[in-house]
Amino acid sequence: MAYRRVDIEIIRQIRSKIADDKRVMTEKQDLAGYSYDGSFGSYMPEVVVQPKSTEEVAAIVKLAYENTIPIIPRGQSTSLSGGPLPVEGGIVLDLSKMDQKLEVIVDDLIVVVSPGVLTGNIHAAAERAGLMYPPDPSSSAVSTIGGNLAENSGGPRGLKYGVTKDYVLGLELVTPQGEIIRTGGRTVKNVTGYDLTKLIVGSEGTLGIITEATLQLIPKPLGTATLMAIFDDIVTSGEAISKVLTSGILPAKMEIMDQACIQAVESYKPSGLPVDAEAIILIEVDGHPRAVEEEIKEAAQICETIGARSVRIASTQAERESLWKARKMVSPAITRVKPTKISEDATVPRSQIPEMFARLKKIREKYKVNLVVFGHAGDGNLHPNIVADKRDKEEMKRVEKAVAEIFETAIELGGTLSGEHGIGNMKAPFMEMELGAAGLDMMRRIKESWDPKNIMNPGKIFPEPGQKLNLTEG
Amino acid sequence: MAYRRVDIEIIRQIRSKIADDKRVMTEKQDLAGYSYDGSFGSYMPEVVVQPKSTEEVAAIVKLAYENTIPIIPRGQSTSLSGGPLPVEGGIVLDLSKMDQKLEVIVDDLIVVVSPGVLTGNIHAAAERAGLMYPPDPSSSAVSTIGGNLAENSGGPRGLKYGVTKDYVLGLELVTPQGEIIRTGGRTVKNVTGYDLTKLIVGSEGTLGIITEATLQLIPKPLGTATLMAIFDDIVTSGEAISKVLTSGILPAKMEIMDQACIQAVESYKPSGLPVDAEAIILIEVDGHPRAVEEEIKEAAQICETIGARSVRIASTQAERESLWKARKMVSPAITRVKPTKISEDATVPRSQIPEMFARLKKIREKYKVNLVVFGHAGDGNLHPNIVADKRDKEEMKRVEKAVAEIFETAIELGGTLSGEHGIGNMKAPFMEMELGAAGLDMMRRIKESWDPKNIMNPGKIFPEPGQKLNLTEG
Repeated sequence: MAYRRVDIEIIRQIRSKIADDKRVMTEKQDLAGYSYDGSFGSYMPEVVVQPKSTEEVAAIVKLAYENTIPIIPRGQSTSLSGGPLPVEGGIVLDLSKMDQKLEVIVDDLIVVVSPGVLTGNIHAAAERAGLMYPPDPSSSAVSTIGGNLAENSGGPRGLKYGVTKDYVLGLELVTPQGEIIRTGGRTVKNVTGYDLTKLIVGSEGTLGIITEATLQLIPKPLGTATLMAIFDDIVTSGEAISKVLTSGILPAKMEIMDQACIQAVESYKPSGLPVDAEAIILIEVDGHPRAVEEEIKEAAQICETIGARSVRIASTQAERESLWKARKMVSPAITRVKPTKISEDATVPRSQIPEMFARLKKIREKYKVNLVVFGHAGDGNLHPNIVADKRDKEEMKRVEKAVAEIFETAIELGGTLSGEHGIGNMKAPFMEMELGAAGLDMMRRIKESWDPKNIMNPGKIFPEPGQKLNLTEG
Repeated sequence: MAYRRVDIEIIRQIRSKIADDKRVMTEKQDLAGYSYDGSFGSYMPEVVVQPKSTEEVAAIVKLAYENTIPIIPRGQSTSLSGGPLPVEGGIVLDLSKMDQKLEVIVDDLIVVVSPGVLTGNIHAAAERAGLMYPPDPSSSAVSTIGGNLAENSGGPRGLKYGVTKDYVLGLELVTPQGEIIRTGGRTVKNVTGYDLTKLIVGSEGTLGIITEATLQLIPKPLGTATLMAIFDDIVTSGEAISKVLTSGILPAKMEIMDQACIQAVESYKPSGLPVDAEAIILIEVDGHPRAVEEEIKEAAQICETIGARSVRIASTQAERESLWKARKMVSPAITRVKPTKISEDATVPRSQIPEMFARLKKIREKYKVNLVVFGHAGDGNLHPNIVADKRDKEEMKRVEKAVAEIFETAIELGGTLSGEHGIGNMKAPFMEMELGAAGLDMMRRIKESWDPKNIMNPGKIFPEPGQKLNLTEG
């Protein structure tokens, strides 16, 4: 596709549609801040626009459509899969300034939000009303709901509560033609035609720009309790996870850290973690206080019976936070080892977690990479992280091969390339491996029917012919 | 679209692809049994095929595609919106014989099913494993999972647990071209490309034929309790519902019956229901037994404080069943009044339920129709049912107008045409009213890109130009 470059005439037209000149940026130093995200690689936009209203978004998209210019929506750039990278240049729409609306409607158990609102602010607003917005991506204090919607973000609570998509009732969307449409509505039940809402959530900005969302809230659970269990071997920890889940308990969170993770955290900030243990599991239950009290005891007993080395229960807020500290230190601890972090989210059926850990161990040895694994064990969503130094081309070649083998292994075990980070540009070359040619073709038909000029976030999800994973350039 | 008729040559080709001649039906008396469903209207298929494998389905779809013949999937024909009606003739695929697979995989909390399996059998298989498949359409004892998937069926438990779509992790699908694809997988988290799974669920057989599904199960709640509250006026009952939901309790079910309903049930089988009350509410909570015990007491207290005339709590299975009896008698009771039942499922935001009841009362008076209302009050999904006699053309004209006004009212109150029954052919004329021209166009783009010959269940969801609701013909 031949795109028109953003020239002086286009800039003039953009400025005529955006009330405030400061919200249209063309200077190199301004653009540079929009050239990267939380993933690998860097690409310069041609212009950055900060719209503040749906009408401004629609006007810019219409202009891009008429002139065949790429248009890339962006929130707070915490994406780990390259979602907001302008890989073909064009117009970056910085939606973080479009954060006017955050309206909790208690009687309908919903909240209506603008795309630039931070997800953490939605959590806080819901809690003030005695309600809860369950999706909790680890980035939620700093990521926007628009980004969460585009990527269908997950998080630890996915086990019990599902992911972002499960809480989206309706959207306002600017289509690739610049039309404003509304999908879904304000009700949990809605079968009026195709579910465009759930098609758009997770489509990574390739089908339109989300300008408003109506999200479902639930009553806030009144009780919470946490336990930490330490296991000498990781297979036993997998058995404990299965046993808890089939005992009638559905925990809110079930997190796992492997030995490499434990060692990295302990050498970063020594706090007495057992560096000889193969796995630490954290289980959190929430709900009615009396149920929570019994369930956490039952879960502890199951872990002990199956063979945990030790189990600790935390009931107060302070005790809970101390148990979670180790898990929260994983990211800073591992980036101390080497500067470049490749964070994956290969997801397997729950029963395959022990096998996945065994395979990841082999991959670590085979390619001599710094691979640590943690993640959401209850729903099979692991985070194999490789830390490396991107200036070391030889090492990056080994990382490339290790990453490819991680993807292949996840699919071989009946899992998926991506549980919660999205495909972006980096995983696009692996799409056909998971979906088959016919499956990928059905996705492409949708993309082409909605966006025939391929202006909406081009270069994402769909592989270019012959495209391969490349971690040594870009 | 000019379809090819099913002639002797097509029949010969169908027979060459289906192993057993008895599974290809062309006799008029056989076809007649496939001309209707649970909705209004009757249309004759040209041939009925009962495939038993994905390969047979793919072969028949390929044949239909090559020859441009309509192809209509069908389960047990309990649809209330015309889903399986062959309105353009063609090949009806009776999938009820394709029921070989019903495999619960406990460690992964999933069940893999063939489309012809009865949903009630999935409930039973999950329970035997200590698990639960939450979606519970009222038809589940007699409807197939394939039909539930095509229509994205709801049910009373939608309030707490969501609908069919929320439990579908993956599908095997035969595309309109006869290709076999797999969407999603076996994991709760999956963001690999567009969510074809959730696009197909609820697409009413217009995008392909579902030949296998992987469904999520959850741990079975160990306790259940029910209460019945009687209210002198319906507005107060709406307040009680809101108050319970914002008190930290999320009931599994919250059902409501209006006065016309109470009177119909009481005159059908007198059991001491208060015929002067404006509303009866049933609330069921489930979960940990200790939580359930407290929550049902709290809910009862809220109802009493807000002004219920009386509240009864049932804790044993027998007591619970006795409370549910009135609700379960609604359907047989109202069809005793008149033979033709038009069952709608207009859904409004929860806070609009009292207003919706007031408007429905006006519609009943304005058009002098036998309108009763019951439904799932907790999630705003009401069932306004009109009973009439379809031989009485004058009455049916009034019913037509009343139905149209019900749809308009639901949309005016921020709701939707259909909460759980689907659009089918009857509601198609109202689609643009809810979605707008641009919104409907985006759905149509998907349909055309997947099924350019419009062979998959034609006449459903999308209105023909100028199409109007018609209850006096067909």
